[in-house]
Amino acid sequence: MNLTTVKEATTIILNNSVNFGIEEVDFINSVGRVLKEDIVADRDFPPFNRVSMDGIAIAEEAFNKGIRSFKIEGIQAAGSPQLTLKNTNNCIEAMTGAMLPINSDVVIQYELLEIKDGFATVNLDTVKSFQNIHKKGLDRKQNDVLIPKNTLISAAEIGVFATVGKSKVKVAKQPKVIIVSTGNELVEVSETPAEYQIRRSNVYTLVSLLENLQIKADTAHILDDKKTLETKIASFLNEYDVLLFSGAVSKGKFDFIPEVLDNLDVEKLFHKVKQRPGKPFWFGKKTVVERSRSAKTVFAFPGNPVSTFVSCLKYFYPWYNKSIGLNFENKQEAVLSEDFYFKPNLTYFLQVKLQQENGKLIATPIAGKGSGDLTNLVDSDAFLELPDDNSNFTKGQVFPLLTFR
Amino acid sequence: MNLTTVKEATTIILNNSVNFGIEEVDFINSVGRVLKEDIVADRDFPPFNRVSMDGIAIAEEAFNKGIRSFKIEGIQAAGSPQLTLKNTNNCIEAMTGAMLPINSDVVIQYELLEIKDGFATVNLDTVKSFQNIHKKGLDRKQNDVLIPKNTLISAAEIGVFATVGKSKVKVAKQPKVIIVSTGNELVEVSETPAEYQIRRSNVYTLVSLLENLQIKADTAHILDDKKTLETKIASFLNEYDVLLFSGAVSKGKFDFIPEVLDNLDVEKLFHKVKQRPGKPFWFGKKTVVERSRSAKTVFAFPGNPVSTFVSCLKYFYPWYNKSIGLNFENKQEAVLSEDFYFKPNLTYFLQVKLQQENGKLIATPIAGKGSGDLTNLVDSDAFLELPDDNSNFTKGQVFPLLTFR
Repeated sequence: MNLTTVKEATTIILNNSVNFGIEEVDFINSVGRVLKEDIVADRDFPPFNRVSMDGIAIAEEAFNKGIRSFKIEGIQAAGSPQLTLKNTNNCIEAMTGAMLPINSDVVIQYELLEIKDGFATVNLDTVKSFQNIHKKGLDRKQNDVLIPKNTLISAAEIGVFATVGKSKVKVAKQPKVIIVSTGNELVEVSETPAEYQIRRSNVYTLVSLLENLQIKADTAHILDDKKTLETKIASFLNEYDVLLFSGAVSKGKFDFIPEVLDNLDVEKLFHKVKQRPGKPFWFGKKTVVERSRSAKTVFAFPGNPVSTFVSCLKYFYPWYNKSIGLNFENKQEAVLSEDFYFKPNLTYFLQVKLQQENGKLIATPIAGKGSGDLTNLVDSDAFLELPDDNSNFTKGQVFPLLTFR
Repeated sequence: MNLTTVKEATTIILNNSVNFGIEEVDFINSVGRVLKEDIVADRDFPPFNRVSMDGIAIAEEAFNKGIRSFKIEGIQAAGSPQLTLKNTNNCIEAMTGAMLPINSDVVIQYELLEIKDGFATVNLDTVKSFQNIHKKGLDRKQNDVLIPKNTLISAAEIGVFATVGKSKVKVAKQPKVIIVSTGNELVEVSETPAEYQIRRSNVYTLVSLLENLQIKADTAHILDDKKTLETKIASFLNEYDVLLFSGAVSKGKFDFIPEVLDNLDVEKLFHKVKQRPGKPFWFGKKTVVERSRSAKTVFAFPGNPVSTFVSCLKYFYPWYNKSIGLNFENKQEAVLSEDFYFKPNLTYFLQVKLQQENGKLIATPIAGKGSGDLTNLVDSDAFLELPDDNSNFTKGQVFPLLTFR
């Protein structure tokens, strides 16, 4: 049997990323999305010489002439138009965030002042020009790029959008995704299964994994009937950008998915990957001839819960990240905490518990009961990716990591 | 001036966590929430002896008698009631996920079979009892606790909820939070500020930081007027569990928040922390006398964007985590990439860029322009917490980390 290696599978998937275009959203709803425009400074930051300590604004010249007691002319509040120091031997009380009054160039904080009878008195030998003043344009100049295109938006970017008045921002559009389970053995979560049935769970796990990427996926269930599968999948291929399947891709009598996809002209790019779990994974695409419509992408994951779970992290996540313009390389790594042996000539996705130790991320294997044991995932934080060219993995070695918490 | 240390501030905040109770939500909407019930197995897992490879089910006894060619009696599909192998010298084709037919105890996969004219022939010397069969109850027994109370829910838990039929789950209720900005200098994001004005940004940053915790906060803005502040804050104290302020807690003429909170019987637990940025941080609570209502908690952060941002991560996050029953200790750490000098006797929250190297998390300082420079956060991934008892920090040293991406 001709198995695709994990590396080959990854390359094929990344070479088939799809651009879903751009949309505009309210800035406050853009966290977790990918920015598709440069954000520039609408004015200098700070936009004026800004007082950065509460105190008095004076003219340095007056201080240098020996004046230490300053008559208070008024108060320069934040949010008020700029005042003018009329007599440069006087002072104006000035608040954090306020404009520096005209004719002043030094701010002395309240902690160093005594205020009495309308005079502020200081006991200092020297002051520095523009002390306690955040000078206009010091942080950024008007038209500087503050956030480049293709940045993943976090709370930090939200603050900048607000500051420069971007109430709407351009972001990568999300693909339309449907997650499809198949199998006569599956009943709904709210139902009580007969002895030979189980409840649907993989579609909901996938829904959650996609929600982590801000994708709201639809779901469907189709019974193991070739005609029904063909009709429904044809309509999904028409309506959605991405189809995720769980199950029916192996050697069983009712594993119709590869055949049905073939009948519907979905090109198989690979089937069966040199990995455990998730070997029967099938991946393909359907090129759409109409203009302005992009290719349809099909990830058909094996039906075992852990296979579906890890395949989504390992393949769908980077494919999606590349599609929307993010860096798609997984750079996460962890240190194996104990020796581990895995004989088959397959890449092994080992379930691990993570722990920080002296700035290092330590991965401890969690004994599992195979790819059917979803409850085992509850005790794990991540998968450590052990390569197929070795069977003996040693304590202290570093391997790529796929986290899900 | 009597400054509270970062450690003291943290202890006080954690000692004042609040239990917001429990609510029930649809399981599919529970990701990121904290589970408030034990999830138990509603039956054994697997619930029956489950075929784990597509192939034929036979009786081991027949194989041991020397039979290698088995007449096919039928097909045991997943999702079908259990069949019986009528003649134990025969076989039944059995699919992954199906019940093991009665009278069979071995499954041989298709890869090792030749099927012709209604017979399946194998060329093997031995088989193992229950090979390719995932035995009933092997993973978990009925009534086993699968997920304990107080687990933070991820996609892995969603799959288990579905499997055991928990269409609704009990989770920690979220606090009702309002985020309040003050200051006459602030205008709305969609407005064009006058020269002396700036746009509101801190409230939106805080909204995003709280969304990371699945909290949907309300927002408000109040001008620097003591009467208005008192009236509005009184009503917020009545309506909300938590009030977050940004600004008006320092020494300025219009920094009315501490005074107003005092007038409204909000007990000050500390004001001013030995840290940069964020020194003027004020924290307090209002005990509510009515039964069945919990205390009101007030975090009054300084108005500088970076001060607000880091204080939310450092103080609100662990307070909230402890309140809902999560482990609140920050265990994240990183390795300083270069020597760093910080003279003042304050805990310094250093903005850093993170990078993985051989399983280690390396933190590189990002030169900033002070706590007013929000755009600087865009270039950073986290804050490294440098303690106040030192000024010279050395390359390779490990410090606590507050991440925000």
